[in-house]
This record gives sequence, structure tokens and C-alpha cells, in this order.
Amino acid sequence: MTPQFRPIADQVEILMRGVDCGDMQTQAAMQEELTERLAQSRDAGRPLRVYCGFDPSRADLHLGHTVPLRKLRQFQDLGHEVVFLIGTFTGIIGDPSDKDSARAQQTLDDSMQKAETFATQAFRVLDRQTTRVDYNHRWLKDLTFADVINVASLFTVQQFLGRQNFRMRFEKGDPIWLHEFFYALMQAFDAYVLETDVQIGGTDQLFNLMAGRKLMHAKGLRPQTVLTYPILPGTDGVKRMSKSTGNTIDLEDSPGQMFTKVLNLPDTVIPLYCDLLTRWDSCRLTHVHARFADDMPAVKRELAREIVSAYHDDSQVARAERDAADMFSGSMPSDTPEFKVVGSAGLLDVLQAAGLIESKGKGRRLVQQGGVKLDGKTVTDPFITALEPKTGDRVVQIGKTRFLRLVR
Amino acid sequence: MTPQFRPIADQVEILMRGVDCGDMQTQAAMQEELTERLAQSRDAGRPLRVYCGFDPSRADLHLGHTVPLRKLRQFQDLGHEVVFLIGTFTGIIGDPSDKDSARAQQTLDDSMQKAETFATQAFRVLDRQTTRVDYNHRWLKDLTFADVINVASLFTVQQFLGRQNFRMRFEKGDPIWLHEFFYALMQAFDAYVLETDVQIGGTDQLFNLMAGRKLMHAKGLRPQTVLTYPILPGTDGVKRMSKSTGNTIDLEDSPGQMFTKVLNLPDTVIPLYCDLLTRWDSCRLTHVHARFADDMPAVKRELAREIVSAYHDDSQVARAERDAADMFSGSMPSDTPEFKVVGSAGLLDVLQAAGLIESKGKGRRLVQQGGVKLDGKTVTDPFITALEPKTGDRVVQIGKTRFLRLVR
Repeated sequence: MTPQFRPIADQVEILMRGVDCGDMQTQAAMQEELTERLAQSRDAGRPLRVYCGFDPSRADLHLGHTVPLRKLRQFQDLGHEVVFLIGTFTGIIGDPSDKDSARAQQTLDDSMQKAETFATQAFRVLDRQTTRVDYNHRWLKDLTFADVINVASLFTVQQFLGRQNFRMRFEKGDPIWLHEFFYALMQAFDAYVLETDVQIGGTDQLFNLMAGRKLMHAKGLRPQTVLTYPILPGTDGVKRMSKSTGNTIDLEDSPGQMFTKVLNLPDTVIPLYCDLLTRWDSCRLTHVHARFADDMPAVKRELAREIVSAYHDDSQVARAERDAADMFSGSMPSDTPEFKVVGSAGLLDVLQAAGLIESKGKGRRLVQQGGVKLDGKTVTDPFITALEPKTGDRVVQIGKTRFLRLVR
Repeated sequence: MTPQFRPIADQVEILMRGVDCGDMQTQAAMQEELTERLAQSRDAGRPLRVYCGFDPSRADLHLGHTVPLRKLRQFQDLGHEVVFLIGTFTGIIGDPSDKDSARAQQTLDDSMQKAETFATQAFRVLDRQTTRVDYNHRWLKDLTFADVINVASLFTVQQFLGRQNFRMRFEKGDPIWLHEFFYALMQAFDAYVLETDVQIGGTDQLFNLMAGRKLMHAKGLRPQTVLTYPILPGTDGVKRMSKSTGNTIDLEDSPGQMFTKVLNLPDTVIPLYCDLLTRWDSCRLTHVHARFADDMPAVKRELAREIVSAYHDDSQVARAERDAADMFSGSMPSDTPEFKVVGSAGLLDVLQAAGLIESKGKGRRLVQQGGVKLDGKTVTDPFITALEPKTGDRVVQIGKTRFLRLVR
């Protein structure tokens, strides 16, 4: 049965949403290529092959990770073929820049196991049935020195040093290790071996995606079309969302936490969040965009509902909204977990055991900064016990969104 | 039978002659390492393993090529083991920078055949019996991407760009292709695989030789000692001796040509030529050095005799000296080759057929510059016939040293 594709203009509208290819000329060229490919795909009844590569070392996904997944999902929903490519090769060889620790390289089994966990989380966005999962160690491990030389000969050192990340380090005099240039070569090989039509990646990956075009051209293949998306800022609205910065909205956040974090986002990032993180169609996005100026609070609430609904469940949305209101007023939300306190355990011991603070040192600083409340009152002494013998249950609150009910 | 080695101090004196490791600190460190290794070699009765790599694409050797060969020969004469390593791997993969022509890569057979010719010429200096000839495709062709990444992670891009050749091109904005950085990695692997004690190379190769030290250290081997020699200037006394510059003294030059070219060298290069190109021992070299200031013409004559004797035969020296005197006075030397002229062939046709000019265009320019003589008279018309019907044999002379007898 020949697949039926939606009209080309509709597909382009959906697929180019949120895409940013760096400069206007590249953007226009890529849109034109995509349009042409979609037309050929429709005429031949052949889905496009689209891929995005992922690093298997990341464990818990946050919204930043979902941006490429959403874009891949759009392709899936339009009937195209998606390759979810896991960068197992990097895992096998280990990161050689980490020279001091001389740590053992991962076995392929380790690497595959991590990849599995990662893929499982990705299927909260992707359609598992139609996703092809692949692993780049399958071809990269067999490349010879001669293969590497041949692809390296397509690039100048100056092109690499022109990339923003390398240029900045070069100008600062920070060492750039030669093998760091190889990641682009690896990605180029992936695109070539997979014979992809389209590759998805962050704007910071544009160079690596373009490397794929170069290699495909050199090898006589039609170069892939590259669609890059802007880097998602975190809850501070400025820095890239990342675990180490601590500005993430995690897929594992409770519905109430998720909802609250979205409501607290700076207005400036809402348009991007709407474009990159929702399942809304073009018509709805157009309407939402028209309301940013006058109706931002309502848009934020809609966005929060959409995100909770996407990663939890429609049924959780109402409760999340209530919980967020509670948190806003300082009360405890309905999904607050309980923690059983034994004897006269110290507060910091309890918070660490419950996983709310990484270390007691960090907990102490948090208390000193006024970030911990007990039954609504700011804690000033970090060394108090969690539950006094005579008091009943208490509620401890860390920051705005994290609550714990202390029980005996 | 345990080999007997000469006293360490004598060996060091011979082996460090002409060596220039870039800066005084490296020079001192290398001499110290060499001394230590020689002592251990003597104590263990184990010869040192010394190697130098050669590119198999070069065909006709000139004196510039003999500099590392002489150094290797010194090691052989002192009882050490020499590996004459031919860079067949480069030949197999082809030079990928030559992108416009997309020329076919050499087969291993081609590459080995060239290597064979090259080695045969090298045995005019090296002792064939005790030389181990090896080919680096044997190990480099089997290296994987992971191997290359691991060695690349030992180097920063800045270290490569700090090399004089790359730095100059970088500053001029000339493209540096990524794979050009790989030659150092290849040499590093060669040293590591061969487990060498000493590597010989030109001062322009110092970085590549040091790369071998780095890799050996990273792999837990004792890093090789590197001995580099200065680049030999050609007959102009300034530019590196090379075929393309046209300032070579070739091993295939006739005894008379060789002798004349040495006599015509600028005085400034004579000390270096004595150190790098002769079989003279330390005692003789010391005496020769003492005579540069007062007795240069005699030293030059001694040097010319030594070089002719090394590449032709002792019996040729006297004739070479006579021939050189003849050339100096414009007469034809005794070893002038004959060329049979048919009919009314043009002079330039004959010179080209005899291999004395590369093209008729170049021949024309040579005539215009007054560089061609016929029977001792400067030729002004490039289009004359070689032999007039009525004249007998004639002698044509190009430049100072090249003669041809035109016969019917």
C-alpha cells in the first residue's frame, strides 16, 4: 500500500516550525530542499528517512532533551521513517580527554544498557512502533585509519576553529584536543552510512550536521537536509537547560512541580517553549502567538497544562493546577511524599536520606540562604532535629516546589 | 656471541656529529639519553634499534637524501640495528589533499615496487646485510578509528599549529587540511610498533619524532631518543636541496659533474657538508674544521674527492678532478655521453630527446639566457638544427656541467 502523505505545504509548515539554521540563507536553502524532498517522497510513495543522534550517557531526561524528540515525532506523525541513533561508539572508546582518571572504557554491554534506558525514556515522546533504534558502533568500530584520513581530508583546520565553541577556546588559549575534531567526522559517517534524507540537531551541532552533507557529497550521495533547533533555555530563561546548571524541568518532576516551574518561567522564553515543546498544531500555535502580548498569564497556564498532560496524563492536569496554587501560597500540594523519621534524627540527615539535598554541606548553605521552611517558617538553625518528641507530623519545604511530609 | 661495542664516549662523539635538536635544552637531554642508552646497550650486549622513515615516492636520490642514511650507517658501523622504514601506507591511501585530480590510489604492489627501487639506491650508503627493511602499511592499515582517536587525544590542536610549517600557513590564511595533522600520528605509531631506541629525522620532522615519544610514554614504553639533523642546503647554499628547486647534487651525476658542483658551492655550507655527507671520522673532521678559515679551496677539493669516491669509486676521483678542470675551462670532460642525431633535427628536439631539457619552452628560455653553448660558442638562435649536413660531430654544453657529444 502506497502511503498517503499530507499536502507538502502543510508538512513544511509543521516541520519548519521552531527550526533555526543559523543564517537566513541556509534557512531558506534548507526549507527549499525539504520541500523538494517531500514532493519526491509523495510522488514515489517513499517516506523520508530522518535521524537524530543521542549520547547514551545521559540518564534522566528533561524538557531540553525532548526538543529533537518532538521534531522526530512530527516526522513520524506525517508518515516518515525515524532513526533514533545512539552514539554507542563514544561509549565504547571512552572519553579520551578524561586522561587523569585513566578510567576503564565501557564495554559494549554497558554502553548498550545505558542506551536501552535512554531509549525507553525517549518513547515517552516517540512512537515506539515506528521508530528504528540503531547504534553507531556498528559501523564506526570497523573504520580503518585510511577511512578516517579520507574523511578528514575534506575539512580544513580553519573550518573547525571557525566553529563558535572551538573559536572561543582557541582565543582564550584553552587546549583543544585533536580528537575533539573527530566528533564531526563520526557524525558525518553516521549520516553517510544511514543514507539519511534529513538530520535533526541543535544549532550548536550545525557544523557536525554540515559535515555529513560534505561526506555524502564526496561519496556521490545526495547530501542530507539539516534542520537545527535553538538551544532551550532553562527555568532561569537565559542559560541552556542542563542538569549541572540546575535549571531543568525534568520528565520525572511531579505534575505540581512541572506546572509551577512553567508558571514561573520568564515571559521571554514562552514563545520558544510553545514552538519547541508542545504537540499543538500550526493553527493553534498561530493563535497562541497572537495572544502573547495581551494574555501571557493564560498562555502560560495553557502551556503548563499541555506539558503536564504530555508527560503525565490528562487526568493529572487539574490536580497539578491545584497543587501549583497551593505551592504558590506556601501550602503543601496533594502529592507530597511522606518520609518516616526515626528517633531524633537531624533535619539535614533526613533531607539527605530523602534525596532532597546532595550533601549536608549543601543543605547547610541552603538553610543559611533561607531556602528551607518547616511548617511554613524559615529554618535558621541547620542543626535542629527533624521532629521534636512532642510535635506531630511536620511539612518541610525546599525552595518553591519541593515538599516532604515528615511522619513518625 | 655478545657484540663488542666501542667506548661510549667515542660512540656519542660520532653519533652526535651534525645533530641539531632545535634548542640547547633538547640537544643536551637527547645527548644524555643517548649516552645512557649506549651504556645500557653495552652492558646488556644488545644493539640499539634505530630507525628512519622514508617516503617511497621519491625516485632519484641526491645528497640531501643521504644525510639520514649516513647517520644510520654510523649506527651500523658501531654495531647497532638499523630499520629502514618505508612509508608504504601513505602510498596505498594516496595523498588525499590532491583532490582535484581524484587520482587512483596506488596499489600495494605499486607502492612496494617504488619502495624497492628506493631501497636499492639507499644501499649505496647503508650496509645491505645488516639493514632491516620494513613497511609501515603492515601495522597502519589495520588501525581502527578507536586507535586513531586514542593517539589523537594525546595532542592539542595548538601544539600542531605551533609547528613552524603549520604556523606560517595558518598566519597566512592558507588552508591546512585536517588529515595533514595525521602524519605525526602515523610516525608516532611507527616508533611505538617498532619499539625503537632512536629515531633519526630532519629538524623539520622534530615534532613528528616527539609525537613518537609521547605515544610510547602513554603506552608505557620508554620513549625513543630523537636525533634530528639540519636540512641540507642545495648548490645555491641557501635553499633546501630539492629536485624542484633544481639545486641538487645527484647520486647519478657523473664524477666530473659531482666534483664541479662541490667546488662551486658557497664556502658557508662547507662545514655542514663535511659533517653530514662524509665518511670522515671525528679526528679528521676536527682537523678539517680547523682549516676552513685559511685553506678552504683545499678543503673543498678534499670534500669533492670524498663525495665522488663514496658514490662512484676511488678510481674515478682522479678523472673527475681532470674533468672538472676541463669543464672549468669550457672543454668537454672525458665521460661526455654521445647522442646520435638523425637528419636535420632541431637542437631543442635533440636536447629534449637526450633528457637535458624538460620541455622545448624551457630550452628556449635557456638559450635566451645564454645557457647553451655549441662547440664553446653561446647559442643565440633556439631554432637552429643540431647538426648541419656539412659539419662533423659537435659538443653541446648546458650550464657549467652538462655536456653532450652530437654524432651522426
